[in-house]
Amino acid sequence: MLKRPFLLFALLCAIAQSPVSAEIAPEDIDKLTSASNESGLAYDIVKSLTVEVGPRIAGSKGDKLAVAWAETKLQSLGFDKVYKQPVRVRNWSRGLAQATVISPYEQKMVITALGGSIATPPEGYTEEVIMFDSLESLQEATREQVEGKIVFINKKMQRHKAGKGYGPVVIGRSRGAIEASKLGALAVIIRSVGTANSRFAHTGAMRYSPTVEKIPAGALSNADADTLESIFAAGKPVTMQVNMQAKEHGWQTSYNVIGEITGTKYPEQVVLIAAHLDSWDEGTGALDDGAGVGIVTAAAKLIKDTLGASERTIRVVLYANEEFGLIGARQYVKENADDLKNIIVAAESDFGAGAIYRLDTRFDEKALPFVDKLIDVLAPLGIEKGNNNATGGPDISMMPALGVPVVSLRQDGTHYFDYHHTPDDTLDKIDPEALKQNQTAYALFTYMMANGAVDPRPAPKQVK
Amino acid sequence: MLKRPFLLFALLCAIAQSPVSAEIAPEDIDKLTSASNESGLAYDIVKSLTVEVGPRIAGSKGDKLAVAWAETKLQSLGFDKVYKQPVRVRNWSRGLAQATVISPYEQKMVITALGGSIATPPEGYTEEVIMFDSLESLQEATREQVEGKIVFINKKMQRHKAGKGYGPVVIGRSRGAIEASKLGALAVIIRSVGTANSRFAHTGAMRYSPTVEKIPAGALSNADADTLESIFAAGKPVTMQVNMQAKEHGWQTSYNVIGEITGTKYPEQVVLIAAHLDSWDEGTGALDDGAGVGIVTAAAKLIKDTLGASERTIRVVLYANEEFGLIGARQYVKENADDLKNIIVAAESDFGAGAIYRLDTRFDEKALPFVDKLIDVLAPLGIEKGNNNATGGPDISMMPALGVPVVSLRQDGTHYFDYHHTPDDTLDKIDPEALKQNQTAYALFTYMMANGAVDPRPAPKQVK
Repeated sequence: MLKRPFLLFALLCAIAQSPVSAEIAPEDIDKLTSASNESGLAYDIVKSLTVEVGPRIAGSKGDKLAVAWAETKLQSLGFDKVYKQPVRVRNWSRGLAQATVISPYEQKMVITALGGSIATPPEGYTEEVIMFDSLESLQEATREQVEGKIVFINKKMQRHKAGKGYGPVVIGRSRGAIEASKLGALAVIIRSVGTANSRFAHTGAMRYSPTVEKIPAGALSNADADTLESIFAAGKPVTMQVNMQAKEHGWQTSYNVIGEITGTKYPEQVVLIAAHLDSWDEGTGALDDGAGVGIVTAAAKLIKDTLGASERTIRVVLYANEEFGLIGARQYVKENADDLKNIIVAAESDFGAGAIYRLDTRFDEKALPFVDKLIDVLAPLGIEKGNNNATGGPDISMMPALGVPVVSLRQDGTHYFDYHHTPDDTLDKIDPEALKQNQTAYALFTYMMANGAVDPRPAPKQVK
Repeated sequence: MLKRPFLLFALLCAIAQSPVSAEIAPEDIDKLTSASNESGLAYDIVKSLTVEVGPRIAGSKGDKLAVAWAETKLQSLGFDKVYKQPVRVRNWSRGLAQATVISPYEQKMVITALGGSIATPPEGYTEEVIMFDSLESLQEATREQVEGKIVFINKKMQRHKAGKGYGPVVIGRSRGAIEASKLGALAVIIRSVGTANSRFAHTGAMRYSPTVEKIPAGALSNADADTLESIFAAGKPVTMQVNMQAKEHGWQTSYNVIGEITGTKYPEQVVLIAAHLDSWDEGTGALDDGAGVGIVTAAAKLIKDTLGASERTIRVVLYANEEFGLIGARQYVKENADDLKNIIVAAESDFGAGAIYRLDTRFDEKALPFVDKLIDVLAPLGIEKGNNNATGGPDISMMPALGVPVVSLRQDGTHYFDYHHTPDDTLDKIDPEALKQNQTAYALFTYMMANGAVDPRPAPKQVK
């Protein structure tokens, strides 16, 4: 358990002791920008990860390879300190996933299991399907309507630059099995939570409730969901055969892999930049989150090589097992509870490789003038000033409530959900120029926070 | 065998007897255009085919369903005559297809069998891979380099409006197995002949030679070919496991399905508009060639409903088994050898659903002035005049050499090869507005040829 009042007290003491005095020299900004413009390092890193390791679902062989890869990579790049933090993770595997509409028209469908789903019986289920347009409609249904059937939740995600279409639809992925099972369904399948009209099905974590019987859960590709919707339009009973053979393989040890460039003047003060090392199993995890791994690792390395170590420590954290519930991130704040007060700011890159267009912060009021300095430096990259209500990326989302300031360097996610969590999340989806813009932005931001006369602690409470 | 000199003589006699006298009334053009603009018939037809039938590889259960569907559809639309022409087709099934790079980095690849490929042994092959940048490079290799290995032909297709990138690359698909086997390869895999950077692998027919040992042939998705190329760049020997279990199921009977609207004045004279009914097995054959089926069927129906039957007969031919070598088309010209002289013109829609931008013809010189009349009517749809060197679509490609005039209503194929021959060839890839433009263009063209005072026979020889 985190002792929050104590933590905040410790944090306030730390703040009192740490006026960072350095001013940022414009020529250093120019040097760092030029060095980044000439460097394909972020791309090289994500290429290395996707080609040499590939898929790396938590606890798998690929995940273990990724941990070894990350340790070696950070060492070979010359980070001052490279270490691992063990994290216990469940290891789930997808296995076979098949679905066929049997009547009124026979059609093979592309389906994938949702992450964490149990299996169907070995012979699958062959049953009538009942379609709902949303989780809410399912919740309003009666047991009589649903019992013994396969539930199909047919809600379509809308495209949005900031990914705002995700939240309203992903609830069906995470809670669909619980709500369908409450009404006696055999299984639940959802329309893929993704914006591509492709035949790739979109996976992602789903949940069970300890008080509700577990049922298998899968997702149809958007194109197949269209077909199924059209089949329903014929007005006849729809029967489907679904067979999914996901398995749990027990608990394994994975690791948060951490690399530091030790601060020259305030080594105990930390600018934390993060990404997650794990990925889903179907793609090679290029956008989610190889890109982030490349961006934050390259940013730190570029600072060191171009301008030398900064006054504060730069800590690159590559989190374990983001996909199955931020497990590495939760472990991090638990194990480093006493050290959180020393984190000046945290940022995570975990939204693909689209260009950054906005900086949101979560800074104490006294540090807000520094946001303008950041924007002065970031504006040439097309980055505008946002709000002071940032939540940070997923793996640092628990930090602001613990007093740690965060920023969100918000990326253009217009096409992120075309590939995210599908077999199509591969290196070719990364635009090297947009990735480089991210690399430069992270390098400049990190450098300024690690050297600038700013202390944004403690993070203010979020404004709802 | 077709007796060509006799055929040409008969054709010339027929021409002498058939001065079509009608002039095209501008108000009829307007009526037909308006009716098409208000009709979603082509879309409804392709939707019906893809939803109610879906994949329909020659000789399969889906193919038989498609034949029954087509017969019923043409009858229910009120064609005057609906009949079938039996065609013997081989029935091949894809089966399991798996590929995994074993070393230096383990990576699962997305692979599909090329159409007609034999299977690997049940346990697959696990062997070293040798990469070539083209079929030509493979042809220059030595037996010592290739023997006992898996050949990978890594040539990338270029995007082009008229699909001109296809030909130079597809030769590796059709002849790869022959050339690789000549040098003792165990199997051949090619980079997908497609323009999408996706993880869908592109299938399509491949050939064997009676004098060269058959070896299995498959295609990797472009994204996986990228990964494999990057793995080769590490400079270490690459080993891959490939397992493909395609099967031949012997010969089956399929059918060309034909619907006619009988001409009022010259019923023996035929305007033939065509598409093919079969598709590959992985997608639902929406672009290839459900779109064509919808376009030509709707065009004929719209003419009849709006303006009544035309002077000449309109014949809609939905060919069997285009994909495995134009088998239905060859059967058609063989069985209808005596009737070919009566075909005023033939056109096939088989290039997806992109808007038509150009009309190419293959008309006798005396009929060339009529091309300008056609263009007057088609120009408002954005269609310009092309050359008089048209080859027609695949299923009518043998007709001009037999004296039958053809046209090519050329479609924008910029994105056709993003989906073509992959699981991603589904209804959602069709833009209903572009499909409607095709429907209107085919209706206007067909109406003018079936009523206009034109006789473009015989087709001139092609200018090389």
